[in-house]
Amino acid sequence: MKINFQNISKIRVRYGETDQMGYCYYGNYAQYFEVGRVEALRDFGFSYKEMEQQGIMLPVSEFQVKYSGPAFYDDELTIVTKIVSMVGARIYFEYEVLNPSGKSISKASTTLVFVSKSNMRPIPPPTSFIELMKKYEVNEN
Amino acid sequence: MKINFQNISKIRVRYGETDQMGYCYYGNYAQYFEVGRVEALRDFGFSYKEMEQQGIMLPVSEFQVKYSGPAFYDDELTIVTKIVSMVGARIYFEYEVLNPSGKSISKASTTLVFVSKSNMRPIPPPTSFIELMKKYEVNEN
Amino acid sequence: MKINFQNISKIRVRYGETDQMGYCYYGNYAQYFEVGRVEALRDFGFSYKEMEQQGIMLPVSEFQVKYSGPAFYDDELTIVTKIVSMVGARIYFEYEVLNPSGKSISKASTTLVFVSKSNMRPIPPPTSFIELMKKYEVNEN
Amino acid sequence: MKINFQNISKIRVRYGETDQMGYCYYGNYAQYFEVGRVEALRDFGFSYKEMEQQGIMLPVSEFQVKYSGPAFYDDELTIVTKIVSMVGARIYFEYEVLNPSGKSISKASTTLVFVSKSNMRPIPPPTSFIELMKKYEVNEN
Repeated sequence: MKINFQNISKIRVRYGETDQMGYCYYGNYAQYFEVGRVEALRDFGFSYKEMEQQGIMLPVSEFQVKYSGPAFYDDELTIVTKIVSMVGARIYFEYEVLNPSGKSISKASTTLVFVSKSNMRPIPPPTSFIELMKKYEVNEN
Repeated sequence: MKINFQNISKIRVRYGETDQMGYCYYGNYAQYFEVGRVEALRDFGFSYKEMEQQGIMLPVSEFQVKYSGPAFYDDELTIVTKIVSMVGARIYFEYEVLNPSGKSISKASTTLVFVSKSNMRPIPPPTSFIELMKKYEVNEN
Repeated sequence: MKINFQNISKIRVRYGETDQMGYCYYGNYAQYFEVGRVEALRDFGFSYKEMEQQGIMLPVSEFQVKYSGPAFYDDELTIVTKIVSMVGARIYFEYEVLNPSGKSISKASTTLVFVSKSNMRPIPPPTSFIELMKKYEVNEN
Repeated sequence: MKINFQNISKIRVRYGETDQMGYCYYGNYAQYFEVGRVEALRDFGFSYKEMEQQGIMLPVSEFQVKYSGPAFYDDELTIVTKIVSMVGARIYFEYEVLNPSGKSISKASTTLVFVSKSNMRPIPPPTSFIELMKKYEVNEN
């Protein structure tokens, strides 16, 4: 199932997120993508928090990122998050980070898996989630 | 109840823990003190992890720290952790951080509270913990 | 010199900032206070980033915090930051964190020191900063 | 140039590194791989810190990770780090994380680029580094 849904979020680089290179530390982008993901879901009409309270979690199973330029302290970054596809219990997101000049400085993707909190095994996404996704389904003909 | 128990742990400053000032970011010391605390408890004969699995948590209620000098990337720091006292559900720790030259660069203290996981209310420490502490009790006469 | 300046910022608790207790980890508040501080300075008409580029840094020398209640994942917290006083090279901030219901869950204070990047020694704050502070000076008679 | 060099480091999962899922947060592995990398270089006879002091930095340009199982609080993880190859200014590392039972829970790789601190442009690795690498070069015939 191919999806076409996009969210744009803003994140300002914190002082504690820089390293002595003077860049935003490469490991902190994982949190930025998580924020982009949660905001995309919220914007999409879905609360990740509520789903987790109902016993379904969504851990990351794969994460790839390419850094093509640095982010600096106090930069207000634009995080573009796309929900791209869903196959079984897996959902796939893509991300792009733009610096304050609008230059692309990073591209990333993640695969996440719907799992039951009780036994940590993959389960189908909630029905309400599938219904929402259908609104943004891309016809592949 | 006054206690006299001390643990010495070593922590190496990670690159991602520095900031663009070239120092270890001030907010990261909280993790170092947590490591000191857990190692002190382990050394003391007590597993924080197991206590939590049995339904008792130990959140921090107060934290004070004075930074008198910087820590740098790749520095192997010495964390001196002291269990100082316990009153009711509260336990009090003190910390000192030494840099690789042995110079004191930070002093801190924390108060933690034993709470029940089920209702988040303060409860007495586990009996096994109190028994252990008695071995290190300081006679205050 | 007593100051009366206040900023209100909003921060949403990230998933990666929670711990297995289900709370926002106690060590992450240091970043929240840093954000409050930087936003207070920006609001005050001052760029911390530019000052640092001009060779003056503002490390934290003391930090105290009391946690009276937890913050949870996805909570939008209100960070109230007050610039309280300045004596010589030292500046003193106070903070309060309110949860989404408006309940106070944490109070904190920090002392920071203006230091020269070249020799790491305390120096007077920039003249432009002192001029700005005078606008918010409290007459102590 | 293919290299055959391997380092094994141990890292204990800190409380602040867990999230409310009860897992080590996926974003924290980037720091673990950085530690593995620095320890591999140290073991290899090379100080990353000194190279940086001499004006050469080594930022990450690509990072991929697959998580096949969780890491829990207080787990002592084994980080296996391999220096795999070097082409021009680029160096390629692979990582595997084993949990305390010896089960592989994560595999990752990173590409890093030697850059000059003065102009942030790619430069050849230091001669001393190339000499060291030659000791571990794999003959590809």
